Amino acid sequence: MPELSAQELADGVRSGDRRCLARVLSLVENGGAGVRSVLPKLATDARQRSAAGSVAGSVADHGARVIGLTGSPGAGKSTATGALIAAFRQRGERVAVLAVDPSSPFSGGALLGDRVRMQDHATDPCVFIRSMASRGQLGGLAAATPMAVRVLDAAGFGVILIETVGVGQAEVEIASTADSTVLVVVPGMGDSIQAAKAGVLEIADILVVNKADRPETQVTVRDLRSMIALSAASSAAAAWKPPVVTTVATSGEGIGDLVRELDRHWSWLTASGELDRRRATRARDEVLALAFGAIRERLAGSLLDDLAAQVADGRLAPHEAADNLLAAVLAQGAVLLA
Amino acid sequence: MPELSAQELADGVRSGDRRCLARVLSLVENGGAGVRSVLPKLATDARQRSAAGSVAGSVADHGARVIGLTGSPGAGKSTATGALIAAFRQRGERVAVLAVDPSSPFSGGALLGDRVRMQDHATDPCVFIRSMASRGQLGGLAAATPMAVRVLDAAGFGVILIETVGVGQAEVEIASTADSTVLVVVPGMGDSIQAAKAGVLEIADILVVNKADRPETQVTVRDLRSMIALSAASSAAAAWKPPVVTTVATSGEGIGDLVRELDRHWSWLTASGELDRRRATRARDEVLALAFGAIRERLAGSLLDDLAAQVADGRLAPHEAADNLLAAVLAQGAVLLA
Repeated sequence: MPELSAQELADGVRSGDRRCLARVLSLVENGGAGVRSVLPKLATDARQRSAAGSVAGSVADHGARVIGLTGSPGAGKSTATGALIAAFRQRGERVAVLAVDPSSPFSGGALLGDRVRMQDHATDPCVFIRSMASRGQLGGLAAATPMAVRVLDAAGFGVILIETVGVGQAEVEIASTADSTVLVVVPGMGDSIQAAKAGVLEIADILVVNKADRPETQVTVRDLRSMIALSAASSAAAAWKPPVVTTVATSGEGIGDLVRELDRHWSWLTASGELDRRRATRARDEVLALAFGAIRERLAGSLLDDLAAQVADGRLAPHEAADNLLAAVLAQGAVLLA
Repeated sequence: MPELSAQELADGVRSGDRRCLARVLSLVENGGAGVRSVLPKLATDARQRSAAGSVAGSVADHGARVIGLTGSPGAGKSTATGALIAAFRQRGERVAVLAVDPSSPFSGGALLGDRVRMQDHATDPCVFIRSMASRGQLGGLAAATPMAVRVLDAAGFGVILIETVGVGQAEVEIASTADSTVLVVVPGMGDSIQAAKAGVLEIADILVVNKADRPETQVTVRDLRSMIALSAASSAAAAWKPPVVTTVATSGEGIGDLVRELDRHWSWLTASGELDRRRATRARDEVLALAFGAIRERLAGSLLDDLAAQVADGRLAPHEAADNLLAAVLAQGAVLLA
């Protein structure tokens, strides 16, 4: 593949060229300078289309619907993802899957082997599956995932599934890039307690008890419902009550119910204005993280080291050091941005 | 207890008054304005002592030795913590324990019940035990823990044990406040794999297989050693090879070995300069987090919202928005700091 310009890559993404899409997603994953040149081209296209007037008539264009799936390894997320691909394909949607693995580099290989379960769809030109691994830097993946979603959205996919491996703070962060977050657990309370401890229960919009042909299924469903009730009681404004769905993903049983709940959640998101609120909050966090990252890069110098040394040996309180640092950053603002 | 000034509270902490210490730790936990007035007083004291000349002679004063213990619920961290308290007390050290629970609010109560296992030491005036719970905001605990350590250091404790509940990204963050981090697992690979996935293995300086009277102990030890070897191979500069210790914390078996490895690690930390490097890095991260928090607070206004809205609907690339935001922050620097 010859070296393409940022504009050519952006045009390729827009026109559905899979090689261009793969190339741009690699730029996103690597987080280098390349992504800084391509993403603005995609945004410019969006501005031009927006300025040229809405094409779709009166219906608001929400772009791609982003669905996150999270849960412990072995819970059946990949099988569920495969079943969801099939369900959305039947409706004629183009579907993209981001399989994000924020676990340690040396456990990554085996877990990504699960991807083979989605290979039923590998030859379907309307399905695009992509793995992203952490390569050691957690913050990197959390920053890369929303950008990758934006690229897939620009490429015209109607549904984007984000699958994360495991339950932990990193997975919570990545899953919360989604409009609807699905937590997949297996019968038995281990998974649910892990999820509760990691804070996943709080962000789950739909809970799936997979492998529901196992005996403890109904107990697990009941326990999850009381955990949700407890959790909801602590947040007064909970207008959406997360439903619990049972599935046997390998046979497809219950996948119809899951799709129905996903549709119901999507209707609620769009009708209540919650979709716009969530997306605006995510964009705000993303912009702040990038701005802070830029400040951090420019602060590698000696002032920060000097202040940190004084904090480390107790001669300066951390708040005092932060105030000093801020004053210095703001005083030399023009220099920092140069 | 009457209302005390910041200086009186700081003096109380320095002189070992437990009520003042408890009060200041509550200020730290709540994260309000109170902590901003007391911590600088403690730092001023340190500056004055430092200016008055070193008292301890030629030996460098490293302050309190901070040891973190992390691992899944039920692994036996609290029992191990209790055994370590006893071991360090036998040497005449004053010991403080911070039991930090970053899990969801509604699972917190039960887990903190483990604290009773440390109550053997509750009446010892040279032992101070304090729980800190998340109350919903994760970032808050990650910010509060290093400050609490600094307060306990100022109160003259020679050893500070930080115990976290569970293994996840939040626990990794809190455990990394320590100079030496101990990961406690039980025989069987579930714990170890969870720890690896959460990135705890990478930050563990010492691994403990507790409940080592169980049959799978030796297999677990061997597996952990190969996981460490794999992990170490990926970081070339690993001068410290984390040892694996087996214990039966309830009977005290192996605790002597654990203390020996902790001492060996402390010697390595101080002799290699790694201690100063770690503490400086932590202080730098802490100062940056506070500075960014201050910027974030001041950025609640409409510019960020406007930029975020454009990013959310694809009309602006996130990097472009971040650049615009930075330019605005720096341009109105004086206003922001006022």
